[in-house]
Amino acid sequence: MTAANPRDDDSTTVHSGLAGVVSHRSSISSIIGATLTYRGINIDDLAENASFEEVVCLLWNGALPRRKELDEMRSVLELELKILPGVLKVLRDMPHDADPMRVLQIAMGTMGIYSPDGDDNSPAANRRKAPRMTSQLSAATCAFHRLRSGKEPVEPSKELSFAGNFFLLLNGRQPEKIEEEAINKALILHADHELNASTFSGRVTASTVSDIHSALASAIGTLKGPIHGGANRAVMEALQEIGTLEKLEPWFKDMRSRKQKIMGFGHAVYKQGDPRAKHLKKLSKELGALTQQPHWYAISEKLEALVGEQIGILPNVDFYSASSYYCLGLPPDLFTPIFACSRVVGWIAHLFEQYQDNALIRPRALYTGPQEAHWVAIEDR
Amino acid sequence: MTAANPRDDDSTTVHSGLAGVVSHRSSISSIIGATLTYRGINIDDLAENASFEEVVCLLWNGALPRRKELDEMRSVLELELKILPGVLKVLRDMPHDADPMRVLQIAMGTMGIYSPDGDDNSPAANRRKAPRMTSQLSAATCAFHRLRSGKEPVEPSKELSFAGNFFLLLNGRQPEKIEEEAINKALILHADHELNASTFSGRVTASTVSDIHSALASAIGTLKGPIHGGANRAVMEALQEIGTLEKLEPWFKDMRSRKQKIMGFGHAVYKQGDPRAKHLKKLSKELGALTQQPHWYAISEKLEALVGEQIGILPNVDFYSASSYYCLGLPPDLFTPIFACSRVVGWIAHLFEQYQDNALIRPRALYTGPQEAHWVAIEDR
Repeated sequence: MTAANPRDDDSTTVHSGLAGVVSHRSSISSIIGATLTYRGINIDDLAENASFEEVVCLLWNGALPRRKELDEMRSVLELELKILPGVLKVLRDMPHDADPMRVLQIAMGTMGIYSPDGDDNSPAANRRKAPRMTSQLSAATCAFHRLRSGKEPVEPSKELSFAGNFFLLLNGRQPEKIEEEAINKALILHADHELNASTFSGRVTASTVSDIHSALASAIGTLKGPIHGGANRAVMEALQEIGTLEKLEPWFKDMRSRKQKIMGFGHAVYKQGDPRAKHLKKLSKELGALTQQPHWYAISEKLEALVGEQIGILPNVDFYSASSYYCLGLPPDLFTPIFACSRVVGWIAHLFEQYQDNALIRPRALYTGPQEAHWVAIEDR
Repeated sequence: MTAANPRDDDSTTVHSGLAGVVSHRSSISSIIGATLTYRGINIDDLAENASFEEVVCLLWNGALPRRKELDEMRSVLELELKILPGVLKVLRDMPHDADPMRVLQIAMGTMGIYSPDGDDNSPAANRRKAPRMTSQLSAATCAFHRLRSGKEPVEPSKELSFAGNFFLLLNGRQPEKIEEEAINKALILHADHELNASTFSGRVTASTVSDIHSALASAIGTLKGPIHGGANRAVMEALQEIGTLEKLEPWFKDMRSRKQKIMGFGHAVYKQGDPRAKHLKKLSKELGALTQQPHWYAISEKLEALVGEQIGILPNVDFYSASSYYCLGLPPDLFTPIFACSRVVGWIAHLFEQYQDNALIRPRALYTGPQEAHWVAIEDR
């Protein structure tokens, strides 16, 4: 691997945020202009045609699965949609007002303790852990939500897809077809996104040859931030603050005058628009109409127009996720957890790559502190 | 901030492990040649003269403290050396054979849930959280060890230093002077080290404006890895495997013939030797003599000579930490946790810097996957 050393040229060049710095080769997803692919397949085609389980196979194994492989993946994912007793105990101990993203980070660490493969970090063990961690993260999300709502966790159904079971485990009832399809599409659209910050943080953790559960716990903590996965929750909080279409313009003016960031717009990588946004926009409209709360979509659409005209930036994946999830009955503090339940698949694919060709990730800092400081005894300070 | 974009030059240059890439300006510690400073003060002077509490003030506030500041820091650190009831409950639930690093990661997330400042990520709240997180991490380490040994956690003493209290909380007895001094020195030597992988992972998490507890949980998971903080534990396991001085050479030959890495040697940044190693070497010798187990030092010294002659690399901070900690009575699986209990101070200093001048840390990947893949229905695959 060629690794030209930028310090050789100029050790005082600070690559703030590592913007544009290429840290890895990766064959998982590509972002070229406004096109996102998973393993070379356009996200548009996957969103329209695939099941989440097919995308899991695609991301982990490199190609779309044949029937047998897909059936096996479905079966193991369904089997593992059960909460481990030790994890359940920890979830029961959590206060009901705990941030679910913190609870998921704790649950991931606890899963590491109770994982049948323990601290075995071999490629074979990590392949076995992958579907477990994926399903158990969803199971933990749903179980914590039910527990904090005074309800008991429910069991998955062999008859349902992963998306359908997610709905069942969360709500305790079978989903309508459109509810299952909406969750399936949202899961697909969030499953991977090259070296986003959470994926990158997982890779940094794995680069010390720490185990895959620890790496995923880092990724969860990173996704939590409001300028990453936390943005979809922030969007919904803004929509709720606005409340009605009439109040949008005054709210927007006020935000602008206070120089506040409008969440759900712009992207570190996409400058010509986020290819995932259009799918979620369509979903938001459909779900709003179906659930007789079309105002969230109406406010969102008008806000998109205002931001476009006056700031010149476009909606990202988080913007229409917010109203879509809300219409599906999800509380806003579960928006980022459901993002995690999908992105965990991409995180794992990247961790497979990291372990396979590992190099410790360890950049340098340009020192800007005192140059001539010395030890001075306390009486002389 | 100048942020030249290496993609402008050559978007196919992969900076593997970010080796030599400067990602941040930082005024906390400097590594120049084989000299390490904290805020410009040579680590040698600090190791010989300072208390850990003085180093905490130095790293967080930028200069050595005067009496009043130091007294306040001592007092708050002592006060917070208590385990929160909600965290204690989680610790009691953990199986006794759980990896203590996993337990610490879970404990850090749980502290975030029960923190009096909740999700307030303001600079003032983070300043209040800093000594709490530092002391409570030590308290959690010691409490878990006592619980798994069938003992109850103990309370800190106002009469003891931070290092002395660490010993008391772990062992339930007052330390001898040399035990307190040894822990104090080890804590100082591990407190910061520029953009090492765990610090960097904490910064990546914080860069999404995620909270400080989540960032520290990432750092703990990253430190766990055997090519980072986990190395001191691995060194002790190797020393135990060797067992006696006579068995060293055959062991070394066998390791070489199987191309196994000898842990505790070499460093990603220091090529002329790790300035911290000499202090720990001295400590290892003294503690070995004091505790009548001089063979660990003797084996270590001979192994250093063999590795130097035949591989040409030098011991790092982890190598003599191992035998030092072991002679202090620490079990090997607590070596990395005590590293975390010290490094948390540096992590926090770096997180203060990150939040103060934040940019999302988001590098790019060079895509190497399929170029011309298309969606194909399952019956046609």
